[in-house]
Amino acid sequence: MNPKKISHIGIAVNSLDEVIPFYRDVLGLAYEGEEAVESEQVRVAFFRIGESRIELLEPLSEESAIYKFLQKKGQGIHHIALEVCDIKQRISDLKQKGVRMIQEEPKAGAHQMNIAFLHPGATGKVLYEICEPQHREE
Amino acid sequence: MNPKKISHIGIAVNSLDEVIPFYRDVLGLAYEGEEAVESEQVRVAFFRIGESRIELLEPLSEESAIYKFLQKKGQGIHHIALEVCDIKQRISDLKQKGVRMIQEEPKAGAHQMNIAFLHPGATGKVLYEICEPQHREE
Repeated sequence: MNPKKISHIGIAVNSLDEVIPFYRDVLGLAYEGEEAVESEQVRVAFFRIGESRIELLEPLSEESAIYKFLQKKGQGIHHIALEVCDIKQRISDLKQKGVRMIQEEPKAGAHQMNIAFLHPGATGKVLYEICEPQHREE
Repeated sequence: MNPKKISHIGIAVNSLDEVIPFYRDVLGLAYEGEEAVESEQVRVAFFRIGESRIELLEPLSEESAIYKFLQKKGQGIHHIALEVCDIKQRISDLKQKGVRMIQEEPKAGAHQMNIAFLHPGATGKVLYEICEPQHREE
């Protein structure tokens, strides 16, 4: 039941186009493409590293949480996502252990994942997401 | 030559004792122990997750970069470490690609790693470390 791996690290950027060359050409990570997540009002670029990904997050509008993050803190690491089995059960376990959840029901995230965020007040000020693939990779 | 995996995520905390229970008992990550890194003036607690680790960093003195980070930004994610082969060659490659390095020669970090930090000005304001185990795990 415990988290299996770091699914991804989400990084808030002003512009994907400005930052992608660093990840692809300088660090040399495998660029996997981009996806708009309308519900979050973000555009996401994915890079594979080992069993994990780095996700760059560019806001699509001022409604986006990433827009607000950039306004407040500037570019930088936004969240860490841990892959779990049975996200609904995990949310229930976390709540039972006194963790305040930002989502009490999983919602659809990028890359066909169901996701839920833990409130950073519970975690030493780190924004953690738990996530579970909607379709298990074989 | 490209990075192989996320070696660890370094997280600055005021007190290991206050935050360890969240990682060990609430998230359920495997606690691997603690180590003092005198050169960095930090005490580090390690948690395994998949092929990566989460490292909690508590300052040992006001000289520590982690102390200064906590004073300025408060608790939160401090850096992302990517494991590479041949760190000296990678530093040379990064410099050739115009990246400013905080260390131009690898130094000893926690967990028997040789490490070097990239200047965040080169990376979209994320503090990246590259690291290489001093003794290769078989």
